[in-house]
Amino acid sequence: MKIRAGIVGATGYAGSELTRILSRHPNIGEIALYGRSAAGKHYGCVYQNFSHTNLCVEDGEEIHDCDVLFLCLPHGIASKTVTNEMLDKTKVIDLGADFRLSDWRVYEQWYAVEHYAKDILPEAVYGLSEINRGKIKDARLVANPGCYTTAAITALYPLLKHKLIDKDSIVIDAKSGVSGAGRGVSGDVLYCELNENIKPYKIGGEHRHTPEIEQALSFAYGENVTVTFTPHLVPMNRGILATSYAKLEHGVGAADIKSAYHSFYGEEYFIRLTHDNCMPQTKWVKGSNFVDIGFAVDERTNRVVAISALDNLIKGAAGQATQNMNIMFGFNEKAGIDFIPAFPV
Amino acid sequence: MKIRAGIVGATGYAGSELTRILSRHPNIGEIALYGRSAAGKHYGCVYQNFSHTNLCVEDGEEIHDCDVLFLCLPHGIASKTVTNEMLDKTKVIDLGADFRLSDWRVYEQWYAVEHYAKDILPEAVYGLSEINRGKIKDARLVANPGCYTTAAITALYPLLKHKLIDKDSIVIDAKSGVSGAGRGVSGDVLYCELNENIKPYKIGGEHRHTPEIEQALSFAYGENVTVTFTPHLVPMNRGILATSYAKLEHGVGAADIKSAYHSFYGEEYFIRLTHDNCMPQTKWVKGSNFVDIGFAVDERTNRVVAISALDNLIKGAAGQATQNMNIMFGFNEKAGIDFIPAFPV
Amino acid sequence: MKIRAGIVGATGYAGSELTRILSRHPNIGEIALYGRSAAGKHYGCVYQNFSHTNLCVEDGEEIHDCDVLFLCLPHGIASKTVTNEMLDKTKVIDLGADFRLSDWRVYEQWYAVEHYAKDILPEAVYGLSEINRGKIKDARLVANPGCYTTAAITALYPLLKHKLIDKDSIVIDAKSGVSGAGRGVSGDVLYCELNENIKPYKIGGEHRHTPEIEQALSFAYGENVTVTFTPHLVPMNRGILATSYAKLEHGVGAADIKSAYHSFYGEEYFIRLTHDNCMPQTKWVKGSNFVDIGFAVDERTNRVVAISALDNLIKGAAGQATQNMNIMFGFNEKAGIDFIPAFPV
Amino acid sequence: MKIRAGIVGATGYAGSELTRILSRHPNIGEIALYGRSAAGKHYGCVYQNFSHTNLCVEDGEEIHDCDVLFLCLPHGIASKTVTNEMLDKTKVIDLGADFRLSDWRVYEQWYAVEHYAKDILPEAVYGLSEINRGKIKDARLVANPGCYTTAAITALYPLLKHKLIDKDSIVIDAKSGVSGAGRGVSGDVLYCELNENIKPYKIGGEHRHTPEIEQALSFAYGENVTVTFTPHLVPMNRGILATSYAKLEHGVGAADIKSAYHSFYGEEYFIRLTHDNCMPQTKWVKGSNFVDIGFAVDERTNRVVAISALDNLIKGAAGQATQNMNIMFGFNEKAGIDFIPAFPV
Repeated sequence: MKIRAGIVGATGYAGSELTRILSRHPNIGEIALYGRSAAGKHYGCVYQNFSHTNLCVEDGEEIHDCDVLFLCLPHGIASKTVTNEMLDKTKVIDLGADFRLSDWRVYEQWYAVEHYAKDILPEAVYGLSEINRGKIKDARLVANPGCYTTAAITALYPLLKHKLIDKDSIVIDAKSGVSGAGRGVSGDVLYCELNENIKPYKIGGEHRHTPEIEQALSFAYGENVTVTFTPHLVPMNRGILATSYAKLEHGVGAADIKSAYHSFYGEEYFIRLTHDNCMPQTKWVKGSNFVDIGFAVDERTNRVVAISALDNLIKGAAGQATQNMNIMFGFNEKAGIDFIPAFPV
Repeated sequence: MKIRAGIVGATGYAGSELTRILSRHPNIGEIALYGRSAAGKHYGCVYQNFSHTNLCVEDGEEIHDCDVLFLCLPHGIASKTVTNEMLDKTKVIDLGADFRLSDWRVYEQWYAVEHYAKDILPEAVYGLSEINRGKIKDARLVANPGCYTTAAITALYPLLKHKLIDKDSIVIDAKSGVSGAGRGVSGDVLYCELNENIKPYKIGGEHRHTPEIEQALSFAYGENVTVTFTPHLVPMNRGILATSYAKLEHGVGAADIKSAYHSFYGEEYFIRLTHDNCMPQTKWVKGSNFVDIGFAVDERTNRVVAISALDNLIKGAAGQATQNMNIMFGFNEKAGIDFIPAFPV
Repeated sequence: MKIRAGIVGATGYAGSELTRILSRHPNIGEIALYGRSAAGKHYGCVYQNFSHTNLCVEDGEEIHDCDVLFLCLPHGIASKTVTNEMLDKTKVIDLGADFRLSDWRVYEQWYAVEHYAKDILPEAVYGLSEINRGKIKDARLVANPGCYTTAAITALYPLLKHKLIDKDSIVIDAKSGVSGAGRGVSGDVLYCELNENIKPYKIGGEHRHTPEIEQALSFAYGENVTVTFTPHLVPMNRGILATSYAKLEHGVGAADIKSAYHSFYGEEYFIRLTHDNCMPQTKWVKGSNFVDIGFAVDERTNRVVAISALDNLIKGAAGQATQNMNIMFGFNEKAGIDFIPAFPV
Repeated sequence: MKIRAGIVGATGYAGSELTRILSRHPNIGEIALYGRSAAGKHYGCVYQNFSHTNLCVEDGEEIHDCDVLFLCLPHGIASKTVTNEMLDKTKVIDLGADFRLSDWRVYEQWYAVEHYAKDILPEAVYGLSEINRGKIKDARLVANPGCYTTAAITALYPLLKHKLIDKDSIVIDAKSGVSGAGRGVSGDVLYCELNENIKPYKIGGEHRHTPEIEQALSFAYGENVTVTFTPHLVPMNRGILATSYAKLEHGVGAADIKSAYHSFYGEEYFIRLTHDNCMPQTKWVKGSNFVDIGFAVDERTNRVVAISALDNLIKGAAGQATQNMNIMFGFNEKAGIDFIPAFPV
């Protein structure tokens, strides 16, 4: 079975990566690319890596006949775009933030824009594939998780679900490659401003991925969980490493942590639990849909330190979106995304 | 049809990339990895990106039942390894230098080691796929070209074949990412010694790829051609960019150059000729088997400046080796290597 | 007044940086370089940036007539080198770990080697210049702090001294450039293994800088303090950024934190407290002896997040060693190290 | 003697580097910073590395009482700014292109703007310090050379002056760090567009430094010299490496080349001629005012390959500007710029 996919916002990095992945997906028959700024252009003029293809960008005024539509739009735009009529005709996977938070009040507070699809929001399914597979299967609208959030949630979810850690002690220190900032032109992402530098930003719990992480972890724990989350920009193109810290509950040890991870993720192909002396590093997942997770217990301070690593444009964006599509359409879940990480790359 | 492939020297970067490619190749049924230093180890311990696989490394004392054998060995070792008996049973693709130079005297002079397979050397076919496809098809032993050489030869071959440039005026200035130096431990390739630095080496025409380039270009021209070739290390993991300079023959202009490239490569999938304002950059071919070629004519000095870019581990090593295997076995030439370049990666 | 300085272990990165700094120091009359591996060589052959100088490396069998001796040696060697006779003749600043921990039992436990100068250890002064200036002034032997430790201690010391944070809640997540690993040849620091990658190591509280941080913070607080400390390698040559997390004590707010920093560091030239929207980044201190410190309070979780940044080879090694020398000899404390950070570099 | 310096255009990278250098220059009493876009701001808000200083930016409507004025302006602006009245009161060093080409027709052709100071142009002295020291001494207006041009000219000047190379055979392949492109915001210099990439630009002899190189080399040779010059962007912050190629004149050998360099530069402090096996690399000059020059002869093709390396923001901009100021005011030529290159940085 082959379907027709549309990508709205195909000129950003996530859209480009999605185009690359879907172009080789065995169940995709045709791809339509939409993007206002590059409308009418050959896609090879927008991304020269596509120069050998015949892909072109359409303006997106009319989007028709897509079996699935991927939205790679700035927040605030997707909630204006998705309608019930659209969902009646096509499945939608939104790679942005508009449908991730189930409470529109929380969304409006953190994103400082109005939510224009409050009526549709309740049916959106949070698309962390390994955690919500069942609901994703039947969803018309999937909210694809953020890159930082996928790293943080996959590392902490099993520990909270099994109540192994103190829910008030969680600190998440995350490090991202620069592609997470997108292709927008700004003085902040000039080469010389980021190269040979490590830069924290949004410190003090201001980053918008915070409520998304907390929503998932609270669901896992069954009570309200808050976290201190600090993102950093690292001088590399791709990859996210999240270092998560939490106090262990009384009597909990390394064996319990290990067991929790294995029981939760033992069957998951795209989650790789590392061995003791092989901590995750971003290079080992680059170019793939894997999340690598490892941990150690600091016995002197009774804390667990969990490390998770992923490729922010694949498992953190286009890869997981494809995984969700696979689930929604009943394709092989690995179809089109079973990449072995490339190294050194 | 599925075949069984063996990789001898699977622990280097080229061997690892080949393992990655062949693991997803539709015509490969099984892969055997050989490497003395890591014999008995799980391949995921050598390259953690393979941690989800069940690949293991064998010592290679006995190599049997491979339909094709890839040799990723230091020069001087392959010529000891390949025998007529081996070639009777299996096709061999050597990624090293031992069978690239048709004259063993030239080999011994440049590589300063004895050639141990002088009797076999005459039947080795130089595996620049686009140029030698016919001979590769019937070869038992293919000498896979070097990374720098593939970049330089693809850019200059059509110009010499059409006698558009002065054969005594050729300068090739090449820039490579660091993976070309391999995974061997040496003070020269420490992070801090190469990062934030550009380093020329083997200047004055001392690099061993020089005679390989000259052999191919002389064949194209029909007379002896010499070149000045200077390699540089650039602080990046992958990619080669070759900037080639030559004086135009009398009366030759940009249109002739363009025409020569198009007539020579017009049908070639893996050679992409760039448009005038889209010069090749290594980022546009990274992760792919493409060579991008562009040029400009400096009318003030009557020179052509040709730019060629490729991924040194793919078209410059494992990708072209796979392409040659495809040709040798009658597979679809693009099978397993039709990657769209990834960006930004 | 001009003195004669000796550097033992001049062939490492710290020794080289010290040589560079002392070569332009107004109070240094002569420099002697010692290093067994490069004995007899021109220093420009070891570090080509010194090719214009006439510095040479001596074997160090005999070290005489130095007013100050800097030791840049692997741990375990300095404690064998320093003697009371040496200290009678020359002041010693040890850039290694041997004299940093006041309790040799703790040293032997963490470093797994015997301490050979237990009798001398009690007089060693921990050389965090801003904190121990008074004692450094009169010391014969100064233990120069580690790079990570200087970043962590400067950020947390005032907060613990003023008892503003919960001493059991401290998490330090530190990120370092690769030069911190030294010039030793190892597969772990090859260019392609670290470039485009972020790598945690010694997770679970195993890094040897942990007890050094705890010793200083315990002193500040007046009780035993433990911390969870996790180092990471970032793909850049220089710089350390430490992100430190702690729960605020009841009733403590951002104003208290700010006030504590300002009262503690208000007069300190080499500590720069950043403004609210100008968080420290390593690029703003690169090439200088400054530590930049900033913070934010995460009110939702009642945590302070403190950011400190420094150049690991300057304030984290050779610069602070020079600062300590300036204090010990009564020179202007800024002499020779009043560098404005270079950017972009 | 202390003088007052003004920097017009202090908000670019060259202006910032000049501010850093002049802030520690023994003969500079005061510095005034001018820059329209940042007028009224503390300089530490423009460049946080200056946060500890009290430097502020003025709008530059009125510039008075400067003994020397450095212009760091886009081309086309300086020629509108410099007047005879200005030169009567203050010495001017222009770091831009407006006064480098002695023929305004050539300037207008290459820069596609009108030259507004044709009357003043004849008295401008080309400020390649080592070559024009005598004229610089008495100049009121010095045109500071470009970064690429300084690298290319220093390597080739002695060879042409001694007529050792064929003037029609010169190819200059140059590689630059990204800071050469300045701090202007553009999609071309985003981190992800340049990192892990090497990019040629202005190929075919279109770069504006071409006529500047030719002007100097023609002067050296005594006849019109043309060159093919190709610049490339390398993923690093700083540094230029120029690889220059030329055919040797009949009978010329390596000894002649060496002798020409030594006779021309033997006394020059800021030109370091490297030994045979120590080719220049940008890391060995980073942070300094040195140009390192090395060469090899390719005897098979009868070419010399000359390598020159410099720090584009120091010897290629602010450092040479300071050197020229030192010459113009009779200061010690090394004053304020006698930096030992920093490594690894």
